[in-house]
Amino acid sequence: MTLDDLPTPCLVLDLGILKRNLAHMREAVARHPGLTLRPHMKTAKSLDVAALAAPDHGPITVSTVAEARYFMGGGYIDQIYAVGITPAKLDAIAALNAQGGHVKVITDDPDVADAIVAHPGPLRALIEVDCGEGRGGVTPDSDALMQIAARLGKHCLGIMTHAGHSYAGRSQAEMEAVAEAEHAGAVRAAERLRAAGTKVRVVSAGSSPTALYARSMEGITDIRAGVYMFGDLFQAQIGTHGLDDIAVTVLSAVTGRKPDRNAVLIDAGGIALSKDRSTQAAPRDYGFGLMLDRAGRPGYGDAIVARTHQEHGEVRGEHPLPFESLPIGALVRVAPNHTCLTVAAHDRYYVVDGSEDVVAVWDRVNGW
Amino acid sequence: MTLDDLPTPCLVLDLGILKRNLAHMREAVARHPGLTLRPHMKTAKSLDVAALAAPDHGPITVSTVAEARYFMGGGYIDQIYAVGITPAKLDAIAALNAQGGHVKVITDDPDVADAIVAHPGPLRALIEVDCGEGRGGVTPDSDALMQIAARLGKHCLGIMTHAGHSYAGRSQAEMEAVAEAEHAGAVRAAERLRAAGTKVRVVSAGSSPTALYARSMEGITDIRAGVYMFGDLFQAQIGTHGLDDIAVTVLSAVTGRKPDRNAVLIDAGGIALSKDRSTQAAPRDYGFGLMLDRAGRPGYGDAIVARTHQEHGEVRGEHPLPFESLPIGALVRVAPNHTCLTVAAHDRYYVVDGSEDVVAVWDRVNGW
Repeated sequence: MTLDDLPTPCLVLDLGILKRNLAHMREAVARHPGLTLRPHMKTAKSLDVAALAAPDHGPITVSTVAEARYFMGGGYIDQIYAVGITPAKLDAIAALNAQGGHVKVITDDPDVADAIVAHPGPLRALIEVDCGEGRGGVTPDSDALMQIAARLGKHCLGIMTHAGHSYAGRSQAEMEAVAEAEHAGAVRAAERLRAAGTKVRVVSAGSSPTALYARSMEGITDIRAGVYMFGDLFQAQIGTHGLDDIAVTVLSAVTGRKPDRNAVLIDAGGIALSKDRSTQAAPRDYGFGLMLDRAGRPGYGDAIVARTHQEHGEVRGEHPLPFESLPIGALVRVAPNHTCLTVAAHDRYYVVDGSEDVVAVWDRVNGW
Repeated sequence: MTLDDLPTPCLVLDLGILKRNLAHMREAVARHPGLTLRPHMKTAKSLDVAALAAPDHGPITVSTVAEARYFMGGGYIDQIYAVGITPAKLDAIAALNAQGGHVKVITDDPDVADAIVAHPGPLRALIEVDCGEGRGGVTPDSDALMQIAARLGKHCLGIMTHAGHSYAGRSQAEMEAVAEAEHAGAVRAAERLRAAGTKVRVVSAGSSPTALYARSMEGITDIRAGVYMFGDLFQAQIGTHGLDDIAVTVLSAVTGRKPDRNAVLIDAGGIALSKDRSTQAAPRDYGFGLMLDRAGRPGYGDAIVARTHQEHGEVRGEHPLPFESLPIGALVRVAPNHTCLTVAAHDRYYVVDGSEDVVAVWDRVNGW
């Protein structure tokens, strides 16, 4: 099977780039003695990717109950489910743990702590700490932190924090500063809990940028990162990786030619690409994605998907498009703005490895 | 099964509203003698919805090969596949037609016309006409229209056009004007083809707003519309329907409480809601969706999903949120910005009918 045999639009995953990205992160994490990389599978959602990113069924992070079940089924028993748990989801997680899983839930709420303790289980929890992102979590110096730990009692395994505000960074110095704030906040929370007698075994931090740029991780036990595996146009601009490190692209066919407005239509639209506009806030706005040639190389200059409809992407460029090489049906690839959202519309990856031959088809777990 | 038993986030489809929306469109189309409603299943992508929207396996419209196969499997043989066809997709459509299907493809390209004729088939095509939208299609007065018809020969069944620019309308007068432009363009194209000896059996037009507002449809054989079935916050603002006519909402649970910034986090994030920001261009910007109460009523004033992460939606309001009724796990519903994109992240509908009881579960066909 080659690219020409694939149903467009679909995801093409370049194995060589994926492996390079995984090695890069492993090396960054290995700078910190004793630190464990706990890959976040929310982006890839694939057992085949996990086999490379978290070898030997290593610890992972998940973002949905569906992922927790799927990866547990593949032998990944050590998981952090890194989205604030609700009481209604405790049964599903306890069922996995009853089958031998060590799926840790997170909470920042005293009442949920009570619900965890009251549940027949088995359940273990981390307290979500806000190190400056301003999404979920209690602050490291809050009374709430101590209160939740007291309510959780022996169900508390430690804390977790997420430096999502690293995405606002635009330089290595800014990334380092966010990483240090994350590090300091996590360690501070852990120290306060320990001083109060809580056994803190897990101090989990992470985001792809801070995992790469942190100067010190002392006191952190594991680091979570996900988007680094595939990369995207946004991460390339904030310095997580280079433009040629984007491992997943959307293979698409030309469905319309409009030389009068220097545009082509492709069959990757708002569903296949997602409507994510992350790069709107970045130095360079790529619209809904950058058009690459069928080999995944930047063969069309500044041509981007400027407009989307449900099943149409409209590609425009500042320079004249080479219409002679873009007949209806011509294959192109689109580098995604935000890979986590783009891949979510697809149920599989067609894997290539330096050529147009499809060497494998890897599935994904979508939904909840 | 009731709402409390559902895995959040998920889609809740209100059967009563759906039926009302379907009746409203049927009545609008019935104003025009001889006009056939050909519901576009790109939004609902569900056989169960089709059973109500296109009774007796009536004619439908589809937007992907996956939809064509799925609906063919359910007995819907008369389809228009309303996205410009590529040569690589002809095999799949011809295979359906060989099994008794009447799946019509569309094209605006002379070379694709040749590919259709050269294919062993069976294949029949409509020529895509641009009535002012500026997406796909040839203009009604173009030489290209005649050239494509000549190349298609007996494979040509007629023309189709799509007044997608009706979405830019903001008043009934503007919708009527777009509908008249659509009508005039379609009829003009058909007349030119007939004058040249082509048998034009299908003159297909459509979009939900123009289907509702067209004053005359004389000369049009069938009208395609899809989003009217479910509605959304954008369509409500352009006058397709009212705010209380939105049939599909996303059921979601509170996962975080942040009284200090008057926000709650919910488990419907960028995937479950989509990152569509259609209402940014509408009079009222609803962010990523309007928060409703668990019954689907506007119980939280102006509270909208202001920010999304992959699995987090952050709800904010100008007025203080009633935190006492929003503990972790509390159910809310989110009315979507753009329903076609939101439902695409989900694989089923949980159907309710005026209460919290789930009366049915209906599947969807996603992907390509």
